[in-house]
Amino acid sequence: MTEFPSIVGRFACEVYWGDCDPAGIIFYPTYFRWMDAATWAFMASVGYTAQRMREQHLAMPLVGADCQFLAPALQGDRCEVRSRIARFGGASFVVAHDIVRADGTTLAKGSEKRVWGRFTSGPGTPMKSQPIPEDVKALFAAR
Amino acid sequence: MTEFPSIVGRFACEVYWGDCDPAGIIFYPTYFRWMDAATWAFMASVGYTAQRMREQHLAMPLVGADCQFLAPALQGDRCEVRSRIARFGGASFVVAHDIVRADGTTLAKGSEKRVWGRFTSGPGTPMKSQPIPEDVKALFAAR
Amino acid sequence: MTEFPSIVGRFACEVYWGDCDPAGIIFYPTYFRWMDAATWAFMASVGYTAQRMREQHLAMPLVGADCQFLAPALQGDRCEVRSRIARFGGASFVVAHDIVRADGTTLAKGSEKRVWGRFTSGPGTPMKSQPIPEDVKALFAAR
Amino acid sequence: MTEFPSIVGRFACEVYWGDCDPAGIIFYPTYFRWMDAATWAFMASVGYTAQRMREQHLAMPLVGADCQFLAPALQGDRCEVRSRIARFGGASFVVAHDIVRADGTTLAKGSEKRVWGRFTSGPGTPMKSQPIPEDVKALFAAR
Repeated sequence: MTEFPSIVGRFACEVYWGDCDPAGIIFYPTYFRWMDAATWAFMASVGYTAQRMREQHLAMPLVGADCQFLAPALQGDRCEVRSRIARFGGASFVVAHDIVRADGTTLAKGSEKRVWGRFTSGPGTPMKSQPIPEDVKALFAAR
Repeated sequence: MTEFPSIVGRFACEVYWGDCDPAGIIFYPTYFRWMDAATWAFMASVGYTAQRMREQHLAMPLVGADCQFLAPALQGDRCEVRSRIARFGGASFVVAHDIVRADGTTLAKGSEKRVWGRFTSGPGTPMKSQPIPEDVKALFAAR
Repeated sequence: MTEFPSIVGRFACEVYWGDCDPAGIIFYPTYFRWMDAATWAFMASVGYTAQRMREQHLAMPLVGADCQFLAPALQGDRCEVRSRIARFGGASFVVAHDIVRADGTTLAKGSEKRVWGRFTSGPGTPMKSQPIPEDVKALFAAR
Repeated sequence: MTEFPSIVGRFACEVYWGDCDPAGIIFYPTYFRWMDAATWAFMASVGYTAQRMREQHLAMPLVGADCQFLAPALQGDRCEVRSRIARFGGASFVVAHDIVRADGTTLAKGSEKRVWGRFTSGPGTPMKSQPIPEDVKALFAAR
């Protein structure tokens, strides 16, 4: 894998009451829900919408994920997930995410390693990894 | 629809930290997550496991759901969802759920109205409602 | 309780990958998560922000909730929850929610019955119901 | 931080319908929900129950979390999270989790880095990190 000069996706989100735990701050799996949604939005932003992914039997199963939590988030905090492709491999890729509050504070930094996969016969059937097409990679290249 | 003399399914669950909100009590959609899981477990208890449902392209989409919240639940509370078929219609059915804490206190009472559905060509494809087979109904009859 | 001529709150949301289940459509407790977040946003829209609620030790515990599911929602569907006060009682109130897709289709209709409550000594401590102040009710009155 | 010879906690869980996504497999933030619940159960197993944590104003906020996903999990899979203390620092600790399916297959391996914290004045108020008491550490020591 090599470092990739990526465009940046932006996904708006907000901390809701039900995203918080009895400590009064965000329950941490919420960040991973956001990162997942941000990656789908990032794909959609270059033309790979949820509908197209479904129709072409594509999916992006995870190999790993991590997150560092830098500052607590409270109910009502408006945030943005800023996503970029950190690396493209042959059939896998890494998405790096910064989660930034409206006041500019970075609340968390995480990453997801995913495989470019295709369902063998429609959603819900087993997936096989696929070489990531060069024209897909090109869609994420910063100019 | 007619009242149905149903067996009772039992689904064990517990209130986790992440199921609670900043008020320190259960976040209410958790009860609906439990009711859904309890219905699947109830089906499995009569032979319709998740695997069989998948293989036979069956699903149970919802028409409606409701819940009354009688007493607050705290992290660590061990509960049981007691499920029964309240009514069978031609292609739909109602599951009634009592959510009871280990000390016998009923925390919530809810119900789900569901359709007996089949995917037209495998999970993820459109569903069509199906007449509920009489032998399926018989599996839930109290003796 | 009497019918209440209410303003309408609008809460934007979208169906994410993780909100859907193996049937490829929205997992129904998601609607209740949305309704909860929509109620908090509705309160914020009249000045009762999350921060103010916290500082004044206010909360809105649930007595009951229900939802009818009219049409399936798919990943990528952009929706709006339209909320209004259906009824004010002495210490309780009912919020009615319509969940409408961007194309105008109503996907679901639900309601929540809530109590106007105050924590006895800060968030996480026991709550007591409170008479709903008349000036709070007035904030929701359509003009 | 030094490696710690830890006892092993065991937390039972199951993949529910609502934990899965349209690919028909577990939605990955579910693993983090499980790891969080497993850590709380691990604490409870040595005497630090949710109730005691609440009463003593203790919490375990996260500094970071990661997970590797080794094999897909399907609805109905029964699993066990096996947790151990990987390291104790002065005020922080790392919990390592193996998520193992009933047939012995390891589905995922993750870890959480947490701080031993105390609410300044009750749940929901700001937390301060605390030195981890030696007698707490001793409770997790394998014999």
